Amino acid sequence: MTQRQPIHQGVIPPMVTPLTPEGAVDVVSLERLVAFLLDAGVSGLFALGSSGESAYLTDAQRNTVIDTVTGAAAGQVPVLAGCIETSTNRVVERAREAHKLGAEAVVATAPFYTRTHPVEIDRHFRAVRAAVDLPLLAYDIPVSVHVKLEPAQVLELAGDGVIDGLKDSSGDDAGFREVVLGTRGLASFSALTGHETVVDAMMLAGADGAVPGLANVDPHGYVRLLDACARGDWPSARSEQDRLARLFGIVRAAAPETAGGSTAGLGGFKTSLRLRGIIASSTMSAPMRELDADETEAVRLRVMEAGLL
Amino acid sequence: MTQRQPIHQGVIPPMVTPLTPEGAVDVVSLERLVAFLLDAGVSGLFALGSSGESAYLTDAQRNTVIDTVTGAAAGQVPVLAGCIETSTNRVVERAREAHKLGAEAVVATAPFYTRTHPVEIDRHFRAVRAAVDLPLLAYDIPVSVHVKLEPAQVLELAGDGVIDGLKDSSGDDAGFREVVLGTRGLASFSALTGHETVVDAMMLAGADGAVPGLANVDPHGYVRLLDACARGDWPSARSEQDRLARLFGIVRAAAPETAGGSTAGLGGFKTSLRLRGIIASSTMSAPMRELDADETEAVRLRVMEAGLL
Amino acid sequence: MTQRQPIHQGVIPPMVTPLTPEGAVDVVSLERLVAFLLDAGVSGLFALGSSGESAYLTDAQRNTVIDTVTGAAAGQVPVLAGCIETSTNRVVERAREAHKLGAEAVVATAPFYTRTHPVEIDRHFRAVRAAVDLPLLAYDIPVSVHVKLEPAQVLELAGDGVIDGLKDSSGDDAGFREVVLGTRGLASFSALTGHETVVDAMMLAGADGAVPGLANVDPHGYVRLLDACARGDWPSARSEQDRLARLFGIVRAAAPETAGGSTAGLGGFKTSLRLRGIIASSTMSAPMRELDADETEAVRLRVMEAGLL
Amino acid sequence: MTQRQPIHQGVIPPMVTPLTPEGAVDVVSLERLVAFLLDAGVSGLFALGSSGESAYLTDAQRNTVIDTVTGAAAGQVPVLAGCIETSTNRVVERAREAHKLGAEAVVATAPFYTRTHPVEIDRHFRAVRAAVDLPLLAYDIPVSVHVKLEPAQVLELAGDGVIDGLKDSSGDDAGFREVVLGTRGLASFSALTGHETVVDAMMLAGADGAVPGLANVDPHGYVRLLDACARGDWPSARSEQDRLARLFGIVRAAAPETAGGSTAGLGGFKTSLRLRGIIASSTMSAPMRELDADETEAVRLRVMEAGLL
Repeated sequence: MTQRQPIHQGVIPPMVTPLTPEGAVDVVSLERLVAFLLDAGVSGLFALGSSGESAYLTDAQRNTVIDTVTGAAAGQVPVLAGCIETSTNRVVERAREAHKLGAEAVVATAPFYTRTHPVEIDRHFRAVRAAVDLPLLAYDIPVSVHVKLEPAQVLELAGDGVIDGLKDSSGDDAGFREVVLGTRGLASFSALTGHETVVDAMMLAGADGAVPGLANVDPHGYVRLLDACARGDWPSARSEQDRLARLFGIVRAAAPETAGGSTAGLGGFKTSLRLRGIIASSTMSAPMRELDADETEAVRLRVMEAGLL
Repeated sequence: MTQRQPIHQGVIPPMVTPLTPEGAVDVVSLERLVAFLLDAGVSGLFALGSSGESAYLTDAQRNTVIDTVTGAAAGQVPVLAGCIETSTNRVVERAREAHKLGAEAVVATAPFYTRTHPVEIDRHFRAVRAAVDLPLLAYDIPVSVHVKLEPAQVLELAGDGVIDGLKDSSGDDAGFREVVLGTRGLASFSALTGHETVVDAMMLAGADGAVPGLANVDPHGYVRLLDACARGDWPSARSEQDRLARLFGIVRAAAPETAGGSTAGLGGFKTSLRLRGIIASSTMSAPMRELDADETEAVRLRVMEAGLL
Repeated sequence: MTQRQPIHQGVIPPMVTPLTPEGAVDVVSLERLVAFLLDAGVSGLFALGSSGESAYLTDAQRNTVIDTVTGAAAGQVPVLAGCIETSTNRVVERAREAHKLGAEAVVATAPFYTRTHPVEIDRHFRAVRAAVDLPLLAYDIPVSVHVKLEPAQVLELAGDGVIDGLKDSSGDDAGFREVVLGTRGLASFSALTGHETVVDAMMLAGADGAVPGLANVDPHGYVRLLDACARGDWPSARSEQDRLARLFGIVRAAAPETAGGSTAGLGGFKTSLRLRGIIASSTMSAPMRELDADETEAVRLRVMEAGLL
Repeated sequence: MTQRQPIHQGVIPPMVTPLTPEGAVDVVSLERLVAFLLDAGVSGLFALGSSGESAYLTDAQRNTVIDTVTGAAAGQVPVLAGCIETSTNRVVERAREAHKLGAEAVVATAPFYTRTHPVEIDRHFRAVRAAVDLPLLAYDIPVSVHVKLEPAQVLELAGDGVIDGLKDSSGDDAGFREVVLGTRGLASFSALTGHETVVDAMMLAGADGAVPGLANVDPHGYVRLLDACARGDWPSARSEQDRLARLFGIVRAAAPETAGGSTAGLGGFKTSLRLRGIIASSTMSAPMRELDADETEAVRLRVMEAGLL
């Protein structure tokens, strides 16, 4: 069995979208973030994923983000564009826009808000593939979409050449391994885990790369982690991962009495990036709120313990 | 205690959006549907709700729908516009567009796709209210949003004048009654049930009106039902409701092996309307499919049994 | 169509199980509760339902409860025994024990803890029916069982004579009405709602009776409510129901920071019954806790407002 | 930081309970299964877990199982007893019985059927610990209990000496790693994964051992896998795991149209064990059914491909 050639591998951060205190896209900070990530040696950039506040931005803001990222990346690594929309025609519309703005791959979820049968999810991905002339990655994120892409379905779509990869944010590592095993014979497929704290484990299981939100904050760490995996140095990989797992505590800094999961996660990432001097403000889109002083201090301690300040 | 004056009451059908076989908005059919509903004596029109395929239509299509409905309604009854979007800024953008196109009220859900805390949901509705100069109704539809608007939260938003009504598609009749009881002292509030088969029961419980998808198919029946409730003739209301409950079997005609819940529900409504000669095609947006011949026959039987053919 | 003859109708309180401060079944209080309910005119007694702490009691305690209730009821009204167990053989074992102790009907849920297919749920009820020579009521309580009994399945079991009734604690009033409509032609079936605050509405929809936990606290109110329904006096029914709906606020007295849903609900019932002098202690089984002083005061106010103190 | 000394480590199969065609515990087959597992070199035996049909067996049957397993194990490895019950007093009753019958540790879940607050779950484990003089492992299995034991809660219970280990069947590998990291400083704790197809990955992450249902069928494979992990031979571990992951396809042999998840999983295990000659019958408790001829053939192919026939 020949090993497949994934088109996307290594560390591909799902980039946050820096905002000005007034809520506009902060283009300068976004360019600085791209430079920071490229400098760390990432293999690709994923704009407008869940960590990119895709669901919070207007279409105009989304366009600004892709335009800025593709411009700043300047072809050094591929830019993947999240096209997070409720249903087929809306995804296609976003994907075509992203294509025009220079994105080199489309990342799309199953439909949401609607109640959609697996047969219809299949039709959805096939229709997007047919309408858009870019590689297509399926984005499995049941916490947002409230549907799980079953491994058998992913494998069928992969086998038929409909999807070129999977961005797995489902937390279902057993299902992810099933996809890894089942796509081994394919000429090309990218199995990417979004599971921040078990990347070493998923690389051992055969993942092609990782798309962890935490790689916004510590891209160098994840690049070292994947380098260790690549050379089979599993103890080093584990040790790097353990450090990153502790750093991941930043997503639990927000008070659960007043902050939802999106605020807590994005708040941890954005606050860390501000503390590290990469982005100018940790503003988040309405109805989220910025972390307050106590929460920020908790984040700062974690970032410092991880050796990043 | 003075009885409140609801701004919206009676039957307010959440209109389906007729499409051409090619998937464009079928403006002629949509105008015919408006005329059919007005002729039946409905009190308002709710465009771009879940039954209106809001989550499936592009923004351009959504604008066409509102423009057509407000034009055809010509001020005879108010037009409520669903602004079904993932988060605050996107809802506001849609609401302003709807306002420009003549809508007289905005219907919005809690954020979805995102993981949002009740405190943030509160902020969301307040921000929408502040940004848009139209009455605002909260739309509680956990099957799509995956969050339930708790009665205590609805009552606080109502008491503060943030929301002017509730469109309850939660199926939680006990919660709905809590809202009805708790808003009795307000000068104005509209408690509207979207629960097709228990409208008589909810009117007994004190609802101001109903927004049942099935009222697309049999608006006359629902108008009769609410008239019976209004004059306290509960046996007639129940008997009309029982007939409508049987008719509601049209939403179970689609084969569950190949059709999701949205396809089954909308398919039942659109197929019935086509059979009744109101809309030209029962096409639905991708990735849904039209009902097939067997399914259509099952719908036809139900519609006939209900005395509508 | 002949109207069916339900074997169980009217008010059938799902009795709480009074405990001594040490956690033993308080037989004297339990007998007093039976007398209180009979005096109010209830039509049956449901022992060992969810409100009876069935899932918290040992088998020995469960036997004491049934023995006490059947003894105290002395044949004046039928005693229904909850046999709440994870799977078929365990339900049968409990049902046989209940039969021996004088119970006149068995109430059983679908299996829980296990992951069970509808086909297996069907087999489950048929096996229980075959093994136990008592009327069998299906208990639909998805909040505990995490499975919903679909109306079509209930109708098939009813049509085949497997079940003699439904105790609906699902909160799905539309599904309940489907069962009511679909069983109208049967010689005998009892459609009983457990939905405390919409009993008037469900009686209008055709329910045979009610099994509301709140009827422990105010059985006279529910008996009046059902009497009003029986004579078609819907305004009185609604007004009684509105009073009871306000009283139901007792289940929200427990602080949500430290009390689960079971504690809140049972705590409200037991505390009210203690305040009314019916039971000696409001002790609840581990790991629940009694309501504290502040919570008890909140309950007391509600009970007083309802005119019960 | 000293490495902790887990009292339970290595492979600890959650044993199936062989039944006769009439549904009685098949003691001879159960003894043969114990011998088979001991011969393969397992480190412990977990009786009456979910794979042991604990939720399907009567108390008398449960006692027979523990009695048989402790007798057959004869002290060669420790026997852990699942005490799967809805609430505290019932768990304690089962745990005391298991203690009398020779079990050397108790495995208990959070309460189920009931609606229980985290504070109450904490109280539950503390009460069980106080009442039973055996090591206590928390069993995290949200698919059955419908509650997730949060890592922070597990760590607090572990730090206070309430629980001696965790059997993680949650599928949440990130949470499991958090427990592994957070218990590193404890004198003794056993972090055991029940996640069949990612055992290599979880051992890399620092697990102490594995409790995979599939180890009933191929204990030698899991022992080899953990040996490879122990000597740091990760490529061999991965390769063994990949073979086992393919074998795990036996749990998908049952037709999803007529078999629930429990039937599919247990059916795969029991059918394989029968084909391997370890147990005499693949009978399962009501309302489950045995796999049919086609399903059995699918299982046989998988078992053969894995080199076990």
